[in-house]
Amino acid sequence: MTNNRIVTISRQFGSGGRTVGKQLAAQLGIPCYDQELIERLAEASGFTPEMVAKQQEASPYSSHWAFALSESQFMGTSIQDQLWQLQRQIILDLAEKESCVIVGRCADVILKGHADCLTAFIHAQKDKRAKRIVEVYGETEVAIDKRIRDKDKRRAVYYEFYTGQTWGLAENFHLALDSGELGIDTCVAILADLYQR
Amino acid sequence: MTNNRIVTISRQFGSGGRTVGKQLAAQLGIPCYDQELIERLAEASGFTPEMVAKQQEASPYSSHWAFALSESQFMGTSIQDQLWQLQRQIILDLAEKESCVIVGRCADVILKGHADCLTAFIHAQKDKRAKRIVEVYGETEVAIDKRIRDKDKRRAVYYEFYTGQTWGLAENFHLALDSGELGIDTCVAILADLYQR
Repeated sequence: MTNNRIVTISRQFGSGGRTVGKQLAAQLGIPCYDQELIERLAEASGFTPEMVAKQQEASPYSSHWAFALSESQFMGTSIQDQLWQLQRQIILDLAEKESCVIVGRCADVILKGHADCLTAFIHAQKDKRAKRIVEVYGETEVAIDKRIRDKDKRRAVYYEFYTGQTWGLAENFHLALDSGELGIDTCVAILADLYQR
Repeated sequence: MTNNRIVTISRQFGSGGRTVGKQLAAQLGIPCYDQELIERLAEASGFTPEMVAKQQEASPYSSHWAFALSESQFMGTSIQDQLWQLQRQIILDLAEKESCVIVGRCADVILKGHADCLTAFIHAQKDKRAKRIVEVYGETEVAIDKRIRDKDKRRAVYYEFYTGQTWGLAENFHLALDSGELGIDTCVAILADLYQR
């Protein structure tokens, strides 16, 4: 097991978890991996970053479910499963190389037993997430409630499929913080303080 | 809504949540209500404290479930439901009277909209909880795994029956902390700091 110290941040869509990760990394003077993981994954797989992002949003149950139920380590041979294996290796390599913050990508579960991790979950009430999503990503033709519901569902399905754990359960993380109530700066301060202890 | 500030602590059996509550209250110089709530409830109901504790451990589904499915505010007329109403009023009165820490009893949901609350959930991995339970409560004839499983289930059923929320979901709390990984003193420090902000 490496001596590097990793912070993993899982987050609800619109909770500001990515911002927490970026600010935390800046404060600690370590890199933050989020969008960059998609780019590395694209490079390693030969797909475009858009294709990688799209595959990670699709339901793992949409195809090859029969393989998924087998005991095979690779859980079938869908594009998604191949990307999962590549992503897993990229995250393990990162943790081996340096201390860093990793946002999303089930890094908490991938690194279990492989690195010294502080695992966090960032969430917020729906009304605050809706406000933030419109501010950060802008309006779309799809109603905000439906955007949140769809994204929450996709993340939960992806996480549960590849980790076997229920999405959003407090007990799966060292700490879970409501960024809407506590504020993003407070979330960063709590995490920075824990990291430095 | 009262100006008092309340900390509610929900906790997994054996996580040390009660100890977190007591230490936090001592540090903040405010009272902590836990076992004392049982005594107040006993006094108000005419039952013995033992009977009150026992009723709160029984499944709300064990009787009167037909009433529970009705729209009645009182959700049936079982002893448990009557105790729930009394407990609800005792907690509302406490929050009206003074700033305090309240451990368990679904106080987070009862006080929603009635008081300025910081809501916390304290949890820990099963092996650490098992160790703590034996240290604090001693061995019994029942295997430790079964004691944890039974108590977890009872708390979840009670909470879900009376609040309509899923037990242990991160999004139901302002923060959730793993006392086994972070340590009880760190949990107390984080909560005290948030309370004083």
